[in-house]
Order: sequence, then C-alpha cells, then structure tokens
Amino acid sequence: MTESGDSFRFTCPVDVRFKDIDVGGHAHHSHALVYMEEARAEYWRQVVGRPHSEEVDYILAEAKLRFHRRVLYPGRLEVAVRVARLGKRHFEMDYEVRSAEGDLLISGSTVQVMYDYAAGATRAIPTEVARAIQALDGPFGPGGRPRED
Amino acid sequence: MTESGDSFRFTCPVDVRFKDIDVGGHAHHSHALVYMEEARAEYWRQVVGRPHSEEVDYILAEAKLRFHRRVLYPGRLEVAVRVARLGKRHFEMDYEVRSAEGDLLISGSTVQVMYDYAAGATRAIPTEVARAIQALDGPFGPGGRPRED
Amino acid sequence: MTESGDSFRFTCPVDVRFKDIDVGGHAHHSHALVYMEEARAEYWRQVVGRPHSEEVDYILAEAKLRFHRRVLYPGRLEVAVRVARLGKRHFEMDYEVRSAEGDLLISGSTVQVMYDYAAGATRAIPTEVARAIQALDGPFGPGGRPRED
Amino acid sequence: MTESGDSFRFTCPVDVRFKDIDVGGHAHHSHALVYMEEARAEYWRQVVGRPHSEEVDYILAEAKLRFHRRVLYPGRLEVAVRVARLGKRHFEMDYEVRSAEGDLLISGSTVQVMYDYAAGATRAIPTEVARAIQALDGPFGPGGRPRED
Repeated sequence: MTESGDSFRFTCPVDVRFKDIDVGGHAHHSHALVYMEEARAEYWRQVVGRPHSEEVDYILAEAKLRFHRRVLYPGRLEVAVRVARLGKRHFEMDYEVRSAEGDLLISGSTVQVMYDYAAGATRAIPTEVARAIQALDGPFGPGGRPRED
Repeated sequence: MTESGDSFRFTCPVDVRFKDIDVGGHAHHSHALVYMEEARAEYWRQVVGRPHSEEVDYILAEAKLRFHRRVLYPGRLEVAVRVARLGKRHFEMDYEVRSAEGDLLISGSTVQVMYDYAAGATRAIPTEVARAIQALDGPFGPGGRPRED
Repeated sequence: MTESGDSFRFTCPVDVRFKDIDVGGHAHHSHALVYMEEARAEYWRQVVGRPHSEEVDYILAEAKLRFHRRVLYPGRLEVAVRVARLGKRHFEMDYEVRSAEGDLLISGSTVQVMYDYAAGATRAIPTEVARAIQALDGPFGPGGRPRED
Repeated sequence: MTESGDSFRFTCPVDVRFKDIDVGGHAHHSHALVYMEEARAEYWRQVVGRPHSEEVDYILAEAKLRFHRRVLYPGRLEVAVRVARLGKRHFEMDYEVRSAEGDLLISGSTVQVMYDYAAGATRAIPTEVARAIQALDGPFGPGGRPRED
C-alpha cells in the first residue's frame, strides 16, 4: 500500500452517488471497495484485455484500506490502480482514490488469486494476462515485486 | 396495493442495517424493494417450497411503493406479503412493511412474470406453484383476483 | 408514467457499477430508484439551482417502476427526468432509463412532497422553485398537469 | 487479526440478504465491512452502552479483511467482535464472520479514532467508554494490547 501517486499509470473516474452517502454525510466506508473494484474491472478490461464480466477469473483473498479524508457527494473520483506484485497464482493491486481536486481520500490494496471456477481450484496466471500486466506495470523482479532498475 | 394488514397470512422479519440509513437519518427509499424482496424470497421458499435461490424462476415487471413513515435504525421490521392476484403467467404481490411497534412504514406491490431462463421466454406458472399459492392466499376467482365469498 | 422519450428536456448519465449486478447477471431491480435519484438530484442542482444536498428539501411519498429490459454491466445509462405534475405542496416526476444504444430499460415516476425538516411538516413549494421548474418543464395548467397548447 | 474464535466474548447475528449476492453467487466482498459494522454497532450499544446511532462518535481509519470462504444466501451469520487494542485516542477491533455451521468465512480488523464532530478534531476515549471495554475485553497492558497474565 503506497501513498504516493506518482507511479500509477492507470486511473478510472467513478462518480459518487447520493445513495453512497450515509448518516455521517460522507460515503459509507464500504464503498471504498466498490470504487476500487470499478478501477480494477476497468483495468482488467482495458489493460488485460478481457472485456466481459464473466471473464473476471480471480477471487479476492485480502483487502486493506486506509481512510484519509471523507468522500463527499456530488463528486467525481479518480481511482488509480496498479499491479504492485505479480506472483504465479496471485497478484496484488494498489489503489488511490482521489477527489477531483487531487486530494487523497482513500488508499488500499487487494490480493487476488486466479481461480478456475469450473474446476473449483486456483490456477496459474495465464501467460497473456501476465504479459499484459508486465507491459503496463512491470517489470517485476524476483518475488514478483517491481524491479528497481 | 392495500393498507389494511388483516388479511396477510405470511410475514417475515427483516433487520434494518446501519448501512441502510442515508444522510436523512432514515433508510434510503430504495431499501423498500430490498425489504420486500426478503419477504418474497422467504414466501417462495416456505410457501411455494422452492428452497434454492436458483429456483427463483420469475422476473420482476412492475413495482409500486408508498412511503408512510421513516424506517429507522436499529430496528426489526415485519414484512407482510401475499399473492393478491394469480394469473396464468404472472402474479401480483402486496406488501406491508411495519415497525416492531406495528406502525405501517411502507406499502407496495410488485408484478412478477414466470420466466424460463434457458428458453429466454415467459412461461405458465407451474401447477404445483399455483396450488401452493392457492392453499395459502386463495381462493382466486375469475381474473385471478381473490374471490369474495 | 410515460414511455415516449420525446418530451424530456433533461437527461443525466449514470454509470452502472459492477456491484449493481445481482446473481441474475443484471442490475438488481432496486437500483432503478438509485439511477432515477441521480437524475433527480442533478435536476435539482442544475434546473432548480440548489447545489447542496442538504437543500434536498422534499420527501419521497410514492414510486412506480416498470422494468422493460435488463440493465447490464459495464454500461453508461442515460436517465431522462421531467416534472410531470406541479402541485402546491407536491410534484410528480417521470423518468426513463435508457441504454447507451437508446433502448428503454426502465420507466417510472415518483411523487415528492416539499418538507420543512425543522418544523417537521409539509410546506408549499417555494415560488422560485416552482418558477425554475415551469421554465424547463412547463407550462402547467389546472391541476398541475402540463398544458396541452 | 486473529483466526481463532476462542476469545471472543461478543457475537451478533446478521442475516444475509438476497441483494448482498453478486453475479458470482456469493455476497459481494464489500459486505464484509457491513456485517462487521452490524456487530460493532451492537457492541457499541450493548457493551459500551450508547444506544443511539448519533452517539457513534468515532471515525474509521483503517480496515483489513481476509476472505476465507464464500458467504451464501440464505443464511444467518454469526459475527464475533472484540476490542484487540485500546489506545488513548484510538482502538482496534478484531472480527470473525462465521456461518451458522461455524465455518470461518471472513476475518478482519478495523482501527477507530474517537472524534468530536462538533470540534472537528480527534479526542481521547472517554473514561466510561474505556471502562466498559475493559470490563468485557480487558485487561489491556502497556501499548494498549491485551495483557497476557
């Protein structure tokens, strides 16, 4: 989980909805995962090149969230996402949710595991998926972490 | 859509969640449909006898809602539901959402059409489904409306 | 509730979210009210000129929905909204939710009653609010319905 | 974040709703935070003794989630919650979400910071709040962590 936005190469706009707002006057904290999901799904469509939702072939194993500032309505968020670690069967993504003014509102990370729904078992990340991720967010060194060249 | 609760024979408790509450301090109005759905699904499991969610073999065609009082948190709602009209391919349900104290909070109705997802087409209500509905909420006269004997 | 989109003068785009989709593969039906709310709120901000959410000074009394086609993900909806009837203390709005391709997905209407939260009572629609609505969606004749000139 | 349920002294039942289920056939992962919130709010009412939602006088700063098994519908969850660390201005809670059969579905933790909404600033945990937490989940040693006696 990082807090510096300088190395995100993919962002996705997400509109806050009135219904997101809870009695405290800001978006309910569970929407952090919804905003991040929109960016992750868009990354999966545009970067990985799997346009159909039935092709979301991973499961979410972990999530970490940090709430920096309130998400207000109305507003358009910019959600930055990147693959921070690329393993054989799993990959980790980092996120930053920012206001239209650029303020960091939420940061976080999720761990996904590739899953074969038909077989009911984890599977290796397909080569073409790994290659597409590498092309945008790589290179990744030993341990799947970004290589500091 | 009725407002007298005397003829409902099936009710289902539904707990209000904190997240249901919007900035106005009461449950967001779209939750009316969620509370009614919980009662409809329970009716489908217990009265119609289809315990699995994949057996929800109808589609929602229409809904009408009237908001009488605010839904507050915390609270346990009692959602009454009945089949008000039983057609050949569709059926209409009436609902009353009441507070634990018995106050009418929301009333409404929905129209469902039996649907064959595999064939992608509407279908007749299966005999055993109609019979189970008749047994609780019937008899239904010409036009599918309850018979006033 | 109308189904011809020709006389709507205000529309609002709303992005479908992955989380809107239920086990049936389409947006859960309760989101109809969420999509309409986004358009209504935007109308309130842009047409009526009340930019802050705390200035949503009405309560929802009724809603009617008709589901024509499935709402799918990903997709950008166009939600058309207009005031169909302008009373002294209440107003009725009509909606059409269309796909990016222009297909009618959901139609509906809602009834709002102006409310003074501080006093805990209904109130008359303020003159400047009625005037702004008239300017876009009027003129309204006797009974608050659009005048057919 | 722990995975052994033996030391939780407070649990709260939460019913899964049909609407929680996403296109994958299980509860959308963001509901993990909703289920935990229900238990946290109930703890706040019953253990801390603040029955009104306006008395939720903390803000959420962090959350961590681990997804072990799918949350299915219908079902009643048991959500266990405890204060795992009690600081001067913040406290950390651990959670376990289990199925009716006792299977661990989700585990996680959240960090809360006491907040004075009127002053717009963090504040110390009130003595009576700390005392109530100590009585159930204490004692807490240096650093706010449970004391291993």
